[in-house]
Amino acid sequence: MRSGELTVEDYAKSLLTRIKDRDPVVKAWAYLDPEHVLAAAQELDKIPPQKRGPLHGVAIGVKDMMLTKDLPTQYNSPIYETKKPSGVDAAPVITLRAAGALIFGKTTTTEFAANSEGNHFQNKTSNPHDPNRTPGGSSSGSGAAVGDFQVPIALGTQTGGSTIRPGSFNGIYALKPTWGAISREGLAQYSMTCDTLGLYARSVEDLELLAKVFDLETDDPVSEQPFQIKGAKIGLCKTSVWPKAGPGTIAAWEKAKELLTKHGAEVEDLELPEDFSKIPAWHLNVLAGEGKSSFLGQHRLAPSLLHSHMTNHVLNHNNLSRKLLLESYDNCARLRPIWDSIASSYDIIVTPSVVDEAPLGLDKTGDYSFNPIWTILHVPALNMVGFAGENGLPIGLTLVTGRYRDLHALWVAKGVGEVFEGEGGWKRGNV
Amino acid sequence: MRSGELTVEDYAKSLLTRIKDRDPVVKAWAYLDPEHVLAAAQELDKIPPQKRGPLHGVAIGVKDMMLTKDLPTQYNSPIYETKKPSGVDAAPVITLRAAGALIFGKTTTTEFAANSEGNHFQNKTSNPHDPNRTPGGSSSGSGAAVGDFQVPIALGTQTGGSTIRPGSFNGIYALKPTWGAISREGLAQYSMTCDTLGLYARSVEDLELLAKVFDLETDDPVSEQPFQIKGAKIGLCKTSVWPKAGPGTIAAWEKAKELLTKHGAEVEDLELPEDFSKIPAWHLNVLAGEGKSSFLGQHRLAPSLLHSHMTNHVLNHNNLSRKLLLESYDNCARLRPIWDSIASSYDIIVTPSVVDEAPLGLDKTGDYSFNPIWTILHVPALNMVGFAGENGLPIGLTLVTGRYRDLHALWVAKGVGEVFEGEGGWKRGNV
Repeated sequence: MRSGELTVEDYAKSLLTRIKDRDPVVKAWAYLDPEHVLAAAQELDKIPPQKRGPLHGVAIGVKDMMLTKDLPTQYNSPIYETKKPSGVDAAPVITLRAAGALIFGKTTTTEFAANSEGNHFQNKTSNPHDPNRTPGGSSSGSGAAVGDFQVPIALGTQTGGSTIRPGSFNGIYALKPTWGAISREGLAQYSMTCDTLGLYARSVEDLELLAKVFDLETDDPVSEQPFQIKGAKIGLCKTSVWPKAGPGTIAAWEKAKELLTKHGAEVEDLELPEDFSKIPAWHLNVLAGEGKSSFLGQHRLAPSLLHSHMTNHVLNHNNLSRKLLLESYDNCARLRPIWDSIASSYDIIVTPSVVDEAPLGLDKTGDYSFNPIWTILHVPALNMVGFAGENGLPIGLTLVTGRYRDLHALWVAKGVGEVFEGEGGWKRGNV
Repeated sequence: MRSGELTVEDYAKSLLTRIKDRDPVVKAWAYLDPEHVLAAAQELDKIPPQKRGPLHGVAIGVKDMMLTKDLPTQYNSPIYETKKPSGVDAAPVITLRAAGALIFGKTTTTEFAANSEGNHFQNKTSNPHDPNRTPGGSSSGSGAAVGDFQVPIALGTQTGGSTIRPGSFNGIYALKPTWGAISREGLAQYSMTCDTLGLYARSVEDLELLAKVFDLETDDPVSEQPFQIKGAKIGLCKTSVWPKAGPGTIAAWEKAKELLTKHGAEVEDLELPEDFSKIPAWHLNVLAGEGKSSFLGQHRLAPSLLHSHMTNHVLNHNNLSRKLLLESYDNCARLRPIWDSIASSYDIIVTPSVVDEAPLGLDKTGDYSFNPIWTILHVPALNMVGFAGENGLPIGLTLVTGRYRDLHALWVAKGVGEVFEGEGGWKRGNV
């Protein structure tokens, strides 16, 4: 498209055809106006080739809890049932538009991206690989739209496991970058400590392109040479959550270990110090404490229209003391540099993404227990595809490393991804 | 107004008269539409008395870097020269409206609330006590409007010293609450670690009312009895920044010590452990690191329209390494519980607000060196009024305590404020 061989309009039309065909089942979109998309595509086609950005014409789905100046933002909340655009772009949307992206539409989210309920006010999104299963959440539509080839790239967010879980369930690459590396301005707020913008794509290369657009910073520029699994030191970190792993994740784990070993990696089981097992509980305290102030306004504005999960935070339902909240903050902060130091001994660390493949039913978005540790440690977490569960649905594994090593993780992911995708057992079909 | 003795409309008219009289000099407003104000006031008058909120009709100025659904948001940036409202309310504005507040207009801010330049794109706000002096920044208009009796309450923010400094310069009470206690959704973002909503009022009682509306949480409910200075243990904490204190602040300091002692407090000089002296440098690292991602979008959108202060962050002008950024994060996080523990030995701690009274000139908003320590420690900081500089302008001192002791600080402030205001030497006149 940058060279003009394909017009953005023709490309957009082909995606709209795919969506017309598939979306009555998948229902990934909270708002999509084909005429608006084509008009925006035509505008992009008018830009002379030498002025086209690195994402010229690339269609991007935006989770419907980020402000977009030309599209309504509804948060999957009856309080915001509107067709009126906000007139304001969230910071990441500004950056993507400046790079030439075609902001395609708004993808479904759980209510305020803050609970695990699939009961969308607007659309009950399904998994593109099986319409009877959840695509995960809270970035439900973004995960499904990319997994279903409706758009190549979409934005999600993660406060618990809202980027990695849909990544795994939909069989796509998902990057939750280092906390702070991408602006959150213009996004719905749940947890000031945990909320992080997430990126979806079907290839690591596409995530690398996004990382460049968002100018992700690192102290260690990655090598020009491809990452070599042979001789690499790779940690396998089950974490204290492991007992929740189901057969699909256990099989993926064993397969990954086998493949990495076979390709010459020095694979080592990594057991974390005892304190790390307390992180999931600390994470819940932080969400409760921060959710209290985040949802106060909505509660005061329309108490009967807010889900009890958020209302309970506002009313401090569990009588969380500020002492416990502060201890949770301080303990997680204390463990961050300890994790970075542990991670620095490995080329990369592999950890589970989910307990198993996407469960049946669209009412719940699944278990995210494996993700909060990495969210609140503020480290890059990257869902890798390639494995399959007992029902043939995709199962991912997550690569993690130290803070601000996002580019390093992506570099490693290209090498590891080739092996996982090639030999892991799950193939991306024509869903 | 809640009982209906005074209509909101009449009250609003009286404020508009004051503004018409005074604002040609003070220039506190980035956007103010008298007709819109009166229409909103009339709507509030229609609410039956039994349904009126705790802030029914109270006029509140909103810093022009928070979204307001019915008023434009311009960030004092030429990129956002618009008269079009966003259609979206920032979270604190939602909460205030739900309590019945009259959102009066948008107050001036330095560009994106992110630098110390007074060269407002729209209005060069002056200090209500001397039109040749700065009101401080970045919450310039909010501080000036409250100090000038144009509105009783206004919202600011603090990333370095943007709430406390204008509080001191304008002779008003200013609360920077515990980080996380009030939502930041819908506010311009500079530093995810430091940005905090701030509150302005001319009395501690008004701040207490706001604290109730925002449901500030505490583990230690304050006593029904007034705070007694007699017998209280009060720490005086000059911090490592003290060598910057000018004659006005030095005199205020001595006066405060004398008054507290005279009224029976057990006053003690509090010297912080050596590590605390490194906080100002760590704070700058955090602002540079987080400002990079926060301003990336604006830089990509309109590079020539963004101030060099922000552009330098985006381009990582000082080559800040991620290692140094992370060390700055982790060291500040490590000191937070240490500060809380130190603070728990005192009923309250007094610390300087500013280096001196507001300096001459409207091009710079003054020195904020005394504030970042408390901002990045995430603790409540409350500017107290009562002292005067060599030119008769107000000088404040700040009360600080441990995290989530905001209500305690306000309770103490009523007692201490009576003495400071009564005997400190500065009287709030008809400016």
